[in-house]
Amino acid sequence: MDTSLARRATAEGLGTFALVTAGCGAIVVDNNTKALTHVGVALTFGLIIMVMIAALGHLSGAHFNPAVTTAFALTRHFPWREVPIYILSQCVGAILGAACLRVLFGPVALLGATMPSGSDWQSFGLEVLLSAILMLVIISVATDTRAVGQLAALAIGATIALSAMWAGPISGASMNPARSLGPAFVAGSWQHQWIYLLAPVLGTCAAAALYQWLRKPHTASNH
Amino acid sequence: MDTSLARRATAEGLGTFALVTAGCGAIVVDNNTKALTHVGVALTFGLIIMVMIAALGHLSGAHFNPAVTTAFALTRHFPWREVPIYILSQCVGAILGAACLRVLFGPVALLGATMPSGSDWQSFGLEVLLSAILMLVIISVATDTRAVGQLAALAIGATIALSAMWAGPISGASMNPARSLGPAFVAGSWQHQWIYLLAPVLGTCAAAALYQWLRKPHTASNH
Amino acid sequence: MDTSLARRATAEGLGTFALVTAGCGAIVVDNNTKALTHVGVALTFGLIIMVMIAALGHLSGAHFNPAVTTAFALTRHFPWREVPIYILSQCVGAILGAACLRVLFGPVALLGATMPSGSDWQSFGLEVLLSAILMLVIISVATDTRAVGQLAALAIGATIALSAMWAGPISGASMNPARSLGPAFVAGSWQHQWIYLLAPVLGTCAAAALYQWLRKPHTASNH
Amino acid sequence: MDTSLARRATAEGLGTFALVTAGCGAIVVDNNTKALTHVGVALTFGLIIMVMIAALGHLSGAHFNPAVTTAFALTRHFPWREVPIYILSQCVGAILGAACLRVLFGPVALLGATMPSGSDWQSFGLEVLLSAILMLVIISVATDTRAVGQLAALAIGATIALSAMWAGPISGASMNPARSLGPAFVAGSWQHQWIYLLAPVLGTCAAAALYQWLRKPHTASNH
Repeated sequence: MDTSLARRATAEGLGTFALVTAGCGAIVVDNNTKALTHVGVALTFGLIIMVMIAALGHLSGAHFNPAVTTAFALTRHFPWREVPIYILSQCVGAILGAACLRVLFGPVALLGATMPSGSDWQSFGLEVLLSAILMLVIISVATDTRAVGQLAALAIGATIALSAMWAGPISGASMNPARSLGPAFVAGSWQHQWIYLLAPVLGTCAAAALYQWLRKPHTASNH
Repeated sequence: MDTSLARRATAEGLGTFALVTAGCGAIVVDNNTKALTHVGVALTFGLIIMVMIAALGHLSGAHFNPAVTTAFALTRHFPWREVPIYILSQCVGAILGAACLRVLFGPVALLGATMPSGSDWQSFGLEVLLSAILMLVIISVATDTRAVGQLAALAIGATIALSAMWAGPISGASMNPARSLGPAFVAGSWQHQWIYLLAPVLGTCAAAALYQWLRKPHTASNH
Repeated sequence: MDTSLARRATAEGLGTFALVTAGCGAIVVDNNTKALTHVGVALTFGLIIMVMIAALGHLSGAHFNPAVTTAFALTRHFPWREVPIYILSQCVGAILGAACLRVLFGPVALLGATMPSGSDWQSFGLEVLLSAILMLVIISVATDTRAVGQLAALAIGATIALSAMWAGPISGASMNPARSLGPAFVAGSWQHQWIYLLAPVLGTCAAAALYQWLRKPHTASNH
Repeated sequence: MDTSLARRATAEGLGTFALVTAGCGAIVVDNNTKALTHVGVALTFGLIIMVMIAALGHLSGAHFNPAVTTAFALTRHFPWREVPIYILSQCVGAILGAACLRVLFGPVALLGATMPSGSDWQSFGLEVLLSAILMLVIISVATDTRAVGQLAALAIGATIALSAMWAGPISGASMNPARSLGPAFVAGSWQHQWIYLLAPVLGTCAAAALYQWLRKPHTASNH
């Protein structure tokens, strides 16, 4: 592994660490104090993603999410050979983030672990839907020069915030296997976690494939 | 229909689908859980419009709204011959979005259908006013190079959010016949829907015409 | 009055009209429904200013506020001879906005008129402070090419939102004689209105003068 | 001290003054009226930082925080010889801000002084963590041309907002010795203040050093 990849992987780990400390931290603190309300928790998730993209996007691309990294590789926007190290860094970052919350707050609120509030399949469906919309926004603002690339941080953060806002009370609005893994691993709570491992990857890959068709070069209009 | 139009129409349908799943989904989930509050619902509507414009604006222009498409056509910013397919795509997207909510949540909260809380004419007046302000912002940031075009997604999303915030409790703050049609169609609830079909078109067309006068070229000052 | 000035004055009136319908409308609707909460009202004020600057800034400069117009004239960023027509347009826009709310909602919540919740002098002091901070932001992002001009709409809207948020419960956070005049005129409630006429002008002019010193050209560093 | 430095120091003092009046003012007003809720207070802190960076960033760099100034000096982005005057200006600004609140509101809510709600070490740990994340964002968007510099105000303000949101109920989310000093000084309440003096400096310096490694030039990948 060359130094450049080490740096980029560190940036991925750092971003995912910040995502879990702030986002899951918001769930933990709201559970303890009732001060944030659900609106405050959803905004925290959106804002931490936004600022981490602004801070680290130019270093590593700011995926912070194995489902996003996989979908980028699938559509040839990211080399497959770097996928394992990116995903490993994201998972390590998320676990360290959850461990940090465990040290600061003790074993409360499952450290912000995601959990379906209704049936497993309802949450599975929601997570596929949310992850697809997320990937559509990411791939559009991150890879398409015709889109408003400069506003990528804002658009992606806003997508996380709005999805957490409306679907958070049902499925937890994870959209991210690493974000779900961190608290599950540290709290030792593995129930229902297959949802958060599988559904996001399904959603992001489907959306990435769809966008490949949508953005076909203008020559396509000659048909 | 050439492939390019098929792509653009798909983008319109996709954006309207996302608008209904997230926005009306927020109403449904808030109805079930009381977690979002009205503030959270209004922010969700604004943010989903913002991110869909950021993601799809460069593909289709990101109308997501028959009243906007009509007003653009009226002021020659959009070809009349493409209006039917755009409106059809928007309506299909909205209906599929509402159907998706029906599958995920069952027949609750009328799937986020808009409904006047007071008299019909109060809501009619409000919807004309809100749609006019929305179109003023859209036509200014989308067609006038002197305006801050790059911030279009932000400005238009913010307009939706603020209008949903203050007028949502009275009229539902639809401003969009497709957004109202989707849940009404799937829930089979057609009462008062003439308001949401008519008022937005009236408002957007009036605002578009007004802006045409406002932005007259500087040569006009020679009179 | 030439056509260009007529257009610009119309834009000023339109923006102030929108400010009063949305902002004061939020107060009225919150008073009737308790749905928005103070946070929702403050965000509405900030967002409507933001989107109106984005929509109309390139046409008229987007003052929407006699205190801002006066301070710009004082620091030679705006011609004195156009001050009266600008202020008149702003006041007419605000009165029409309040009249529109009167028609839609009846004589409720004083149509969002500003009123000190404590002593007159406390609110006077607050209004001077808030207006000074507002003008500092406006003059910096609107006149100084070294500042982030493109983000003017965002920065100024955010200033309104945050000031309404923290000081709204005490003084109403007007910062704007026209915004206060509109509801006072239509509701016929003139008590304490001298505060909102005087304090904003004092604050904006002081801040504009201070900024003139702060931004002195670099040659000054030769002393 | 030359005139240019005097101007820049004034800008630093002004920004920190505004931070304390608005941010701590939000705490005081919420304590008196219960109108803002914790979400409103957190948003106020984030927005005032955002707008002050937009307004004054081009004049002084918009640190408004001794811990940020120190970390910039440590990584050679700011001359050590100007550090004392910057820090002095920030502290004077914060004290004047708290004094202004004292005059307007009387001796309430400790004028927004920061205080740990749990153990001292929990808050110490949190403040180090929050300050490190803040500095990571600042140094990235402020010094690295590859990052989205133009969005600096937005990214840094958002970081303050989200940190105040999730960690505010525990440690006060100061991240800034001057912001803590102001109310402590005027209210004469010095307990636990060592936390807010020490932890932010530790956090910002650690993050600045880490970023220096992360952003090493691309030539490093030749190793």
